Amino acid sequence: MSTEPFNVGLLGFGTVGSAFATLLEERATQIQQLTGRAPVLGEPLTTTRGSFPEILERSELIVELIGGIEPAREYVLAALGAGKHVVTANKQLLSSHGEELFDAARAAGVQLRFEAAVAGVVPVIRVLRESLAGAHVERVHGIVNGTTNFILSEMARGSSYEHALAEAQRLGFAEADPSEDVSGRDAAAKMAILARLAFGTPVHIDQVPYEGIEQLQTDDLQYARELGLGLKLIGTAERRDGGLSVRVHPAFLYSGHPLASVNGPFNAVTVESDAITEITMSGPGAGGRQTASAVLGDLVSTMLPPSAPALPLDPLPLVGDVTSGFYIHMEVADRPGTLAAIIHELGQQGASIKSVVQHGLGEHARLLMVIHPLAETRLREALRRIAALDFLRSTPRAIRVIEEEFM
Amino acid sequence: MSTEPFNVGLLGFGTVGSAFATLLEERATQIQQLTGRAPVLGEPLTTTRGSFPEILERSELIVELIGGIEPAREYVLAALGAGKHVVTANKQLLSSHGEELFDAARAAGVQLRFEAAVAGVVPVIRVLRESLAGAHVERVHGIVNGTTNFILSEMARGSSYEHALAEAQRLGFAEADPSEDVSGRDAAAKMAILARLAFGTPVHIDQVPYEGIEQLQTDDLQYARELGLGLKLIGTAERRDGGLSVRVHPAFLYSGHPLASVNGPFNAVTVESDAITEITMSGPGAGGRQTASAVLGDLVSTMLPPSAPALPLDPLPLVGDVTSGFYIHMEVADRPGTLAAIIHELGQQGASIKSVVQHGLGEHARLLMVIHPLAETRLREALRRIAALDFLRSTPRAIRVIEEEFM
Repeated sequence: MSTEPFNVGLLGFGTVGSAFATLLEERATQIQQLTGRAPVLGEPLTTTRGSFPEILERSELIVELIGGIEPAREYVLAALGAGKHVVTANKQLLSSHGEELFDAARAAGVQLRFEAAVAGVVPVIRVLRESLAGAHVERVHGIVNGTTNFILSEMARGSSYEHALAEAQRLGFAEADPSEDVSGRDAAAKMAILARLAFGTPVHIDQVPYEGIEQLQTDDLQYARELGLGLKLIGTAERRDGGLSVRVHPAFLYSGHPLASVNGPFNAVTVESDAITEITMSGPGAGGRQTASAVLGDLVSTMLPPSAPALPLDPLPLVGDVTSGFYIHMEVADRPGTLAAIIHELGQQGASIKSVVQHGLGEHARLLMVIHPLAETRLREALRRIAALDFLRSTPRAIRVIEEEFM
Repeated sequence: MSTEPFNVGLLGFGTVGSAFATLLEERATQIQQLTGRAPVLGEPLTTTRGSFPEILERSELIVELIGGIEPAREYVLAALGAGKHVVTANKQLLSSHGEELFDAARAAGVQLRFEAAVAGVVPVIRVLRESLAGAHVERVHGIVNGTTNFILSEMARGSSYEHALAEAQRLGFAEADPSEDVSGRDAAAKMAILARLAFGTPVHIDQVPYEGIEQLQTDDLQYARELGLGLKLIGTAERRDGGLSVRVHPAFLYSGHPLASVNGPFNAVTVESDAITEITMSGPGAGGRQTASAVLGDLVSTMLPPSAPALPLDPLPLVGDVTSGFYIHMEVADRPGTLAAIIHELGQQGASIKSVVQHGLGEHARLLMVIHPLAETRLREALRRIAALDFLRSTPRAIRVIEEEFM
């Protein structure tokens, strides 16, 4: 392996650009262990400093995080033409000039990666380009805009559109000018990119009809609940009538649908094909650090040889006795002091009780408890002592409980 | 690009092997378009025919679908040593001899891919090896055995363990001897493989403590519901106390947890890290054709240059007017014949009604309808005619409805 540094040129230093620089510094040692080369980031190009020709000259790979069409297009084409790999998060550029860029990358024999352009950290680009490259995809559909999904989630709880939008802006999920998101145009750009990869058919954003969420009424969301329906902004690319339909519009889903339970600023994409049935992938839709993480994944993929798994890192020791929450089932004689004695034994081992349900069964009672996380060895000791209490009518049974809720 | 055929040697011709051969033949033309080379499959090695040395000699890549340790280990090591790429679905082999195989692949500079060994069609191996190669993973956990997830889903609906297992066997989700699955050992092998990739730490299956589902009582599942809990067999690999904990056991999850809604013979894996927050991926857990599809994805990845998206395929025409189900909201005068007149107009355009809710509002009524799929142009025509009816009190609003349920 080469021990030369791997020089990375960064164009753009906004939210994502600065998060990327931070993340790259945090991960540099691990990346060097994995790939044999240390990634080195030079001064970024911003609107006020840096020279693109100098950055291009000294870099093996260019990360384009400027956004928009020009000058991003000019820079990316120049980089590819100069034989440099490119990683970009620019959905506008890819959905309006994709074929031009893909042709330039192929002609130069360099890599052009863009995982961060679609669906935040959800690795749908990689899965379509690589895992499913040989598949006959029937449909790709999903929630590809976290801002509108957050707003619709709020509206489903009774907020007006205006209130939900203001809340999204306050929390940083929507921009001051939200029109790209709420009009559906951002989702349309992403669906154009996904359709190209899934169906091998060039699709320009102007060929994707889209409707947004500005016209939706909170009361429609409420009424539709009575019909068992939840509302999402859905992007679809699918085979229809011997052709390809790509579109974005609000749609009601029945509650059993895998996209129906995706709430808040999340993205989720389902890919369907005969052979795989379907794969659904979900995760946070945006955020500077999340987007930067997708960019970093593309950078590392460019550096990694396509080969065996990397050498082991500094191996971690394996640990045994871990803490978990537990559910406990007991049958006991129904008499005073029983519950107190059990709680005492649990408390002796440091257990704290989260919830209890007691059922009378004539002379017996069934006690169901959930306790907060406790080391497994201490739980076993508590159960051993409880089993020895004279009012126990069955051997206590315990099953672990995973505490955390989805965000 | 070379126009030489790409010779593939297949070891094993059971359920997955024969499904792979069929799928490869179906997809051969598309794979040739993508990669420039036609994959060609020779006679497979079975217990009764074929010669491994001959297959090795004539192949660029070996697909190992024999399963178990020997002779699979011997063949895979021989193939790697001879400079051939290897694709395998063999979790037993990887979880007990992974480092030996990885070292052999690195030494020979060839690829060793094994997406099909874990989580069916869910591309978790690729995402950990590539998208997240530079990430600091905190935890990987999930449902990695479809057989036990099916059984637990049946038990949650009141079946006994024995009945649920028999049903799984009848439907082909469980083998005649289900002990690898129900004991948790199959999941433990998969978690050893995932832990190696996520944490760079070699983990042998014998280092993974596991508990299965044979001891679970249907009534525990019922009682736990009162506490808002659902039961899954969960595999976990996570940083704990400065080390790594890898384990498999049944666990209760609160209903908001992303794994709680994964029912039936499905797999789902969540990867958590600071930078990405979390990614969840789900899909069918097994099935010959699904596993074969994961094998095919690895084969195509080996053939694809790491580069720009492939050339466009025969492009599909873009289609415009698509059919959808629709929700329709109308306010009407509350008098006889109103509903009949609306249904007549919808029927004229070919719409059929799935459900109707009517709310009285004094002299008016609110009508909410869901109709079965209809071409968008016909729906617009029906709404135009309905809007002209004299008893309408508001402009009808329509929002698309996605009909299908999750399997």
